[in-house]
Amino acid sequence: MKNKKIALVGGGSWGTALFHVLQENNNDLVWWHRKESAIHYILKHKRNSKYLPSLELNISEKHLSTQVQDTIQQSDIVLFAVPSPYLPGLLKKCPRNILRDKIVVSAIKGIIPRKKILISEYFHEKFDVQPENFLFLTGPSHAEEVARKRITYITLASLNNNLLSDFDDIIRNSYIHCIHSHDVIGLEFASILKNIYAIAAGICYSLGYGDNFISVLVSNAISEMHSFLSIINTHNRNLMTSGYIGDLMVTAFSKFSRNRTFGEMIGRGYTVESSLLDMKMIPEGYYCVNSFHKMLPKYRVPMPVVQAVYKILYKGKNPESVITRLSGCFY
Amino acid sequence: MKNKKIALVGGGSWGTALFHVLQENNNDLVWWHRKESAIHYILKHKRNSKYLPSLELNISEKHLSTQVQDTIQQSDIVLFAVPSPYLPGLLKKCPRNILRDKIVVSAIKGIIPRKKILISEYFHEKFDVQPENFLFLTGPSHAEEVARKRITYITLASLNNNLLSDFDDIIRNSYIHCIHSHDVIGLEFASILKNIYAIAAGICYSLGYGDNFISVLVSNAISEMHSFLSIINTHNRNLMTSGYIGDLMVTAFSKFSRNRTFGEMIGRGYTVESSLLDMKMIPEGYYCVNSFHKMLPKYRVPMPVVQAVYKILYKGKNPESVITRLSGCFY
Repeated sequence: MKNKKIALVGGGSWGTALFHVLQENNNDLVWWHRKESAIHYILKHKRNSKYLPSLELNISEKHLSTQVQDTIQQSDIVLFAVPSPYLPGLLKKCPRNILRDKIVVSAIKGIIPRKKILISEYFHEKFDVQPENFLFLTGPSHAEEVARKRITYITLASLNNNLLSDFDDIIRNSYIHCIHSHDVIGLEFASILKNIYAIAAGICYSLGYGDNFISVLVSNAISEMHSFLSIINTHNRNLMTSGYIGDLMVTAFSKFSRNRTFGEMIGRGYTVESSLLDMKMIPEGYYCVNSFHKMLPKYRVPMPVVQAVYKILYKGKNPESVITRLSGCFY
Repeated sequence: MKNKKIALVGGGSWGTALFHVLQENNNDLVWWHRKESAIHYILKHKRNSKYLPSLELNISEKHLSTQVQDTIQQSDIVLFAVPSPYLPGLLKKCPRNILRDKIVVSAIKGIIPRKKILISEYFHEKFDVQPENFLFLTGPSHAEEVARKRITYITLASLNNNLLSDFDDIIRNSYIHCIHSHDVIGLEFASILKNIYAIAAGICYSLGYGDNFISVLVSNAISEMHSFLSIINTHNRNLMTSGYIGDLMVTAFSKFSRNRTFGEMIGRGYTVESSLLDMKMIPEGYYCVNSFHKMLPKYRVPMPVVQAVYKILYKGKNPESVITRLSGCFY
């Protein structure tokens, strides 16, 4: 699959790190950005202004575009790395067949808010993307570390074994290693839940709870994730692998985690609004907990950690009393 | 079981934190220390000189002893919190029946080195302590946080339900909560392995690996622990609870973890000897990996993370090349 043309849609931290990796691997690449001004900055300074600004990019005009439809149409593989709530607006004007016969790779860990569906489901429903042409890219992969070429094991999930090995060829290098999985939906859900759980960990940290407590919170969250994933389908998954538990640990415990940082601000008493303003980037978990909470009745599985985060962020409940109550059912 | 006399054997950090908790809970308590000088210091300064020295202790002469045999004989419950290699020497002169009809509580996360047996097995073999009189105290519980009264969920493991609820009454308070389990041996092994895995995490950190990599190391370690525990017995355990995975996470990721700190020194290029000298306290994982490695042939289960730590600490192998090789089999 080498020599295929790749469209990379998304100019945030993860998009920037992925551009750097894919370009270092000598792929033919066009990088879509929302704003002309971002492109001007990148061309002038050879770096992205707001995201990973210390990462030097070997980039020229031919690599950049603000025309999403053109960019997609001219590519064989489309890699999406935008926040989930922006995806429908971004593709609003695209015809239903725009992704026909293309490979769609999602690096989005989120839910389409209004529709309350996963990214894989959205591409299938809206653009008729078939499972054999879809791949989900996940795993513990802070963009900051990928940019610094720290060894990272990402997880590639697809029902198509050829696609797994082809995309592995494209992205693998001396510091990016790939683990393969067929559990697309399970990993999509795990990637959503871990952001919510990281917010919970951040809240507890700022409320003054220590590592002893937070590790019990996270082990309860893992059990909760396990219960949920067991009922969505019967995939024979091992939760104790890096795409599930590894990604959760890195998000809940690492200083690079935006979701944890957001939780820490909430725990310190900032309002949701001022935390989001202050962070300049909105952590996926903030949207996800709302969308996921709306999906919950369908599944009928108790998820007290998700409920706790939802109540704090969307119902204005006092973090201290919500966490005290939550911890009453820890095991 | 309130009003029973408790002997606490062990003057390190965990022993000090446990003394503080048990005394706050108004237990009748005698605290054994190896050295008279330690007792003099404690009586004079109302704090332990080397361990948790900022913790003020409400203590008088009647609470302290250097006579292990006397201390045990006069008690109903004996709580051990000494490093595992010191235990046999400490009890060398005690008669076989000294623990008859007493409750034995082990807070020791280790192996008896020469015998290569668990602490529960040692008490059974050497002092005929019956399973119904034995309780293992474990879980994510950094002594530093317990001393600061940070909420901590410990795990109590025993085959005796009455003992579980009786000891729960003794130790539970506003910041110590208890989770009960019957998986004594599984939790003993988990508590040994997590120290070894924390050393591995520390080594990787100092070698320059980031959070992305370390979370994959730890998820592989969890899978390895799972494989091992599945073969030791058929206990229907949930590894995704705080006594197993929670304790591993707190040890592998927390700044308070001595085992992780030791690993970090090894990763920075210190020799084992100078790291141990510098730390002043020997982390349990250092002994355990040697003893556990010797037990491994009996179980015939591949444990690459344990093997890697063993090779670095006991075979003088280069950490960088051992970790590179180990990561080749990550999944």
